[in-house]
Amino acid sequence: MKKVVLSGMRPTGKLHIGHWVGALANWARLQEDYRCFFMVADWHALMSEYKNPFSLRRNSLDNLSDWLAYGINPQKAVIFRQSEIDEHLELAMILSAITPLGWLYRCPTFKEQIAQLKEKDVNTYAFLGYPVLQAADIVIYKANFVPVGEDQLPHLELCREIVRRFAGLYKKELFVEPQPILTAASRLLGLDGRKMSKSYENYISLDEEDETIDKKVLSMITDPARMKKEDKGHPDICNVFAYYEIFKKEMHDEVFDWCVNAKKGCKDCKKFFAQILKDFIAPRREKKREIIAKEDYLLDILREGNKQAKEVASRTMAEVKETLGL
Amino acid sequence: MKKVVLSGMRPTGKLHIGHWVGALANWARLQEDYRCFFMVADWHALMSEYKNPFSLRRNSLDNLSDWLAYGINPQKAVIFRQSEIDEHLELAMILSAITPLGWLYRCPTFKEQIAQLKEKDVNTYAFLGYPVLQAADIVIYKANFVPVGEDQLPHLELCREIVRRFAGLYKKELFVEPQPILTAASRLLGLDGRKMSKSYENYISLDEEDETIDKKVLSMITDPARMKKEDKGHPDICNVFAYYEIFKKEMHDEVFDWCVNAKKGCKDCKKFFAQILKDFIAPRREKKREIIAKEDYLLDILREGNKQAKEVASRTMAEVKETLGL
Repeated sequence: MKKVVLSGMRPTGKLHIGHWVGALANWARLQEDYRCFFMVADWHALMSEYKNPFSLRRNSLDNLSDWLAYGINPQKAVIFRQSEIDEHLELAMILSAITPLGWLYRCPTFKEQIAQLKEKDVNTYAFLGYPVLQAADIVIYKANFVPVGEDQLPHLELCREIVRRFAGLYKKELFVEPQPILTAASRLLGLDGRKMSKSYENYISLDEEDETIDKKVLSMITDPARMKKEDKGHPDICNVFAYYEIFKKEMHDEVFDWCVNAKKGCKDCKKFFAQILKDFIAPRREKKREIIAKEDYLLDILREGNKQAKEVASRTMAEVKETLGL
Repeated sequence: MKKVVLSGMRPTGKLHIGHWVGALANWARLQEDYRCFFMVADWHALMSEYKNPFSLRRNSLDNLSDWLAYGINPQKAVIFRQSEIDEHLELAMILSAITPLGWLYRCPTFKEQIAQLKEKDVNTYAFLGYPVLQAADIVIYKANFVPVGEDQLPHLELCREIVRRFAGLYKKELFVEPQPILTAASRLLGLDGRKMSKSYENYISLDEEDETIDKKVLSMITDPARMKKEDKGHPDICNVFAYYEIFKKEMHDEVFDWCVNAKKGCKDCKKFFAQILKDFIAPRREKKREIIAKEDYLLDILREGNKQAKEVASRTMAEVKETLGL
């Protein structure tokens, strides 16, 4: 039987190429070998977006269209919306009852995120319990693996601790201790060299238009020491070179040569890369456009995915309730 | 239109005459004038009983039988089980997202209960959120009134704060700010003069047998200064007199006279009271016995109550989701 993978994305805004590199490309591979559950994590999104939740629904459908356009296949993976599966909250309630507060406060991500999301005011009850709901998301599908970045490892460790506590309290190993599939930290920085992020406006979205791809790539910072075209450059500190490495690895030697031997100026090099990116994005953007126009189709996919997810989740919850005698 | 009342009991054990005096007698009156929702608060029970949740289901049906035997009428009130109405957890999730952690920590009941329930180890994530789930329970039925003891007032104040925060954030006064119906702190102490409580084993249960009523009442402590029958007593410090005041108020003058004028000894006075209590409990105990034997009947009552509760709760949740654009 195929091993189970659970992953999700919070529908907090448009998806960008960082999401492709850091998650979707991975998902597209995983769905070939695992029984994958891919979740629109709208409850988790609400935790940071509660002051302006009005775009969550639109974002959900927009993101889902990206997923599909970029190769996530509803025939292969179960695609569902977290808030539609009541069992997540039921299990989260039960896990909440057995999770000591200290475990959550000691979770390094809590204080970090409080600091990072300062403007969002996430010092809330729900946000403290983020990892508990996440644990419920994972174990309700008895997921063996969860693709995570290094920063998410403490959450997964907490999830395993909760699984062990459940087994200890109720003398029943109902759940699986999930293991991480470590996603290499994305080498894809934003256009300005900082982390690619919606709030920095330094991203290229997954449905970026050709025209703005050109503009955005041309605005990228290259080797600052290379003032003139004739200067020799240093690809290892050039953000554009890093993009080549991700989107056109096979041109490594050639682009390296352009730069260190000053065979091509930065502007031309960027124009060349912009074309590569347009070739990558354009067909997917068009596909997305078709998909998002068919809201019924999207809702059907969710309906079918929700149904499949609910089947598994309700089976697990029946076991949980039996175990606790509820 | 009738005003709405919400109240609940945690099915953590057998009900005793303290529950009658402090809650059920009140409920029986309230159901005549209000649209009452009476809830088996099993999620709230789980928060303290998570280490041994195996009796929650049995307790639920046992307590429900007591409710019915003591006059709670499913034709007049909506009787339902919290965990069957998914909307409670959904709304609690949303309210969690807008409730600052500080509000919960500042809640005086939190630290008190942590101290009181030390042996139960309730320093958990769920327990900190007790008032948030309670707020959801209340506002999902747009309850105007909640019968509470003085000690529960901070929870109700917190509930109103959450209601105001919701209205402020989403510019919509969807919920009602619930007001307390203050239950006078019960003057009914346990047999030993401490608070009547399951854990002190100093209670008379709502289905106590005649034989043990006799034993228990005879074991009660009266005026310790009255050593002999001929000594004059002090009813104001006599626990048995306090019981008379509650269960046979009309005998006030007579019993007072027995005591201060040493006309009846404590033992006889207690025997007399035991009979009063037996007359009160026996027919209800028999009724309960009939009821609890018919599990199908109990489940039918819950099913019907759940249906009615769910109708209201799902209507409210639809409004909430529309308001938040979910």
